[in-house]
Amino acid sequence: MRDDNSLPTVGMIGGGQLARMTHQAILSLGRSLRVLAVSPDDSAAVATPDVRIGRHDDAVALDEFAAECDVVTFDHEHVPSERIEALAAAGHVVRPTASALLHAQDKSVMRRRLSELNLPVPRWEVVTSVEDLDRFGLPCVVKTAVGGYDGRGVFMVERADEIAAMLADGVVLVAEERVDMVRELAIQIARSPRGETRAYPVVETVQENGICTEVIAPATGLHPDRAAQAQAMAEQIARDLDVTGVLAVELFDTGDALLINELAMRPHNSGHWTIEGAVTSQFEQHARAVLDYPLGDVSSTAPATVMANVLGGEAGGPAFDERLRQLFTVDPQAKVHLYGKSVRPGRKIGHVTVTGDDVPLLRQRAREAASILRHGHP
Amino acid sequence: MRDDNSLPTVGMIGGGQLARMTHQAILSLGRSLRVLAVSPDDSAAVATPDVRIGRHDDAVALDEFAAECDVVTFDHEHVPSERIEALAAAGHVVRPTASALLHAQDKSVMRRRLSELNLPVPRWEVVTSVEDLDRFGLPCVVKTAVGGYDGRGVFMVERADEIAAMLADGVVLVAEERVDMVRELAIQIARSPRGETRAYPVVETVQENGICTEVIAPATGLHPDRAAQAQAMAEQIARDLDVTGVLAVELFDTGDALLINELAMRPHNSGHWTIEGAVTSQFEQHARAVLDYPLGDVSSTAPATVMANVLGGEAGGPAFDERLRQLFTVDPQAKVHLYGKSVRPGRKIGHVTVTGDDVPLLRQRAREAASILRHGHP
Repeated sequence: MRDDNSLPTVGMIGGGQLARMTHQAILSLGRSLRVLAVSPDDSAAVATPDVRIGRHDDAVALDEFAAECDVVTFDHEHVPSERIEALAAAGHVVRPTASALLHAQDKSVMRRRLSELNLPVPRWEVVTSVEDLDRFGLPCVVKTAVGGYDGRGVFMVERADEIAAMLADGVVLVAEERVDMVRELAIQIARSPRGETRAYPVVETVQENGICTEVIAPATGLHPDRAAQAQAMAEQIARDLDVTGVLAVELFDTGDALLINELAMRPHNSGHWTIEGAVTSQFEQHARAVLDYPLGDVSSTAPATVMANVLGGEAGGPAFDERLRQLFTVDPQAKVHLYGKSVRPGRKIGHVTVTGDDVPLLRQRAREAASILRHGHP
Repeated sequence: MRDDNSLPTVGMIGGGQLARMTHQAILSLGRSLRVLAVSPDDSAAVATPDVRIGRHDDAVALDEFAAECDVVTFDHEHVPSERIEALAAAGHVVRPTASALLHAQDKSVMRRRLSELNLPVPRWEVVTSVEDLDRFGLPCVVKTAVGGYDGRGVFMVERADEIAAMLADGVVLVAEERVDMVRELAIQIARSPRGETRAYPVVETVQENGICTEVIAPATGLHPDRAAQAQAMAEQIARDLDVTGVLAVELFDTGDALLINELAMRPHNSGHWTIEGAVTSQFEQHARAVLDYPLGDVSSTAPATVMANVLGGEAGGPAFDERLRQLFTVDPQAKVHLYGKSVRPGRKIGHVTVTGDDVPLLRQRAREAASILRHGHP
């Protein structure tokens, strides 16, 4: 029992930048995020005093952590489904549930479910042999059903025998048609256990080498009917999959139609723009949703917001502190978010957000800001 | 020596809500605020992993703390001036300096200096005897030169002998005329060691029983000449007193003129609105200023922003968690900031901010939100 003035504790499994920014947001709600991190050096572990060190696949660590939290949620998709079920069976409140989260963990489960719901997805098939893939048709995209992220686990396959080694290792693979798309979009929606939902505007996500580099909110030139369709799909997925917390739906825009690419059930890179660009950030919203608090307003605070990811650069060049000074000199309006992570080439180490109304100019500013932090020059 | 990717560490002496919100802001800059707190339960101590426990008047604790920081700054004015000088003499970087901060610590020093600078202040005098006060003229306001805040240390005196006991205790007292004012205003300006300054708009502060309850940004109906005058005064004070960090100048508006009331050299209650209402919050700005980084843009993000303080209510009534749910139900746009402090009647335990364009409506919403958190009803 808590006393009258105490507030429920949110625990997040995983100590990455999503947990870090959730902690930053939840401080405003009068509490610290409790984090289960693998290492005391993790991005969130160095931001909050409420850290427990333990692995996300260690049954004992998970159970001890959950026992200290009023509600448990996730920074990533890597907690085994059976471990989440065990936590729930032991009476812990876990949001989203294992059965919902599975759709963000296993692409074959997700594809099957979305197909059953008659939601638009690329043509797909689980392939268990080289022959399966030949029958499916080549070239195509092959994805590992579990474990991929930021472009890892996704392969452009020309010849069926390219997947022989993975099949021999027992990896479950999903084949998908190569979608001829004009751009990628994403929409985020929050849903609370009581069934309240709030959807943010549809955004455009720009990818390079499978990694999101830029998000434009809202997506430019999107027909209102198409935006409404995306929102209706997000609503349906959130409801039919019984999602609690923030759900991100990644979409392919073929010009003629929207196809669902992937799902994430946590704050997501495509929603970082909401920190400055929306009344309620995705991080506060995720916390409110998993606490079953009334959700916050998702109105935009500016006509347009652009976020650029800061990737780690090559060694050498100006010291990072000098890069920060340079950026602040060049753009006093840029909002910098650094994750406290060590720099490795290509690793997401932060992001920069700018708001305004001139999208091409905002994109240029965001890209230059990210470049200064990555390379030491615009 | 730091390696190329590390960033300088900001240390703040004092673990109150100002340090808590500075930590929250500085996470975006890729670091934690290092805090010297008296108790591990302090508002900032429960928010950051970088806590050292020690008193702000303990020479050893201060020296050990400063040795771990690249720059040291303050959450309050209670560090003795000679202790700050000792830190500087030992080679630590302290911003603001002891000689600047003294003007926010000692009202007699502040009044004398502002008078020398020909800045407008109420008629004032240091009084050392009951006869001094009679000569000064009664009724008047008597303030303790050091140690007062939130209305403490300020007395409305009708008869000179009311101050006899304080004089007998050796307290230095400053007498001031009772200013016939129409309202109170405040302006915040940041100044960095390189001399860069950025001033936020002039705001109106509403006080009840000596405690700020509400801030309206920008102040309504203020003639642009008067606003420019306030800004020029803030600039002059920041420059002539060699302030580094954020300076708050509290002002009396007599309708005909502005008179300077008090100075603070740290983030200040009158600037909490900047978290949502300005591109750069006062907390990030203070960190940037003491780090000698280029300062952030101070443009407003909305036509008007209103902040209401949440004071602790009497015992009883709905549990705090229920109050939060009620507020979120009533006003999904309200931005809540709770400080993680235990509730005592009248204690500042948080604040609420709303942005928009209809000031009377914003004030009503902010007051109702604060009332729900204080009393459990609007």
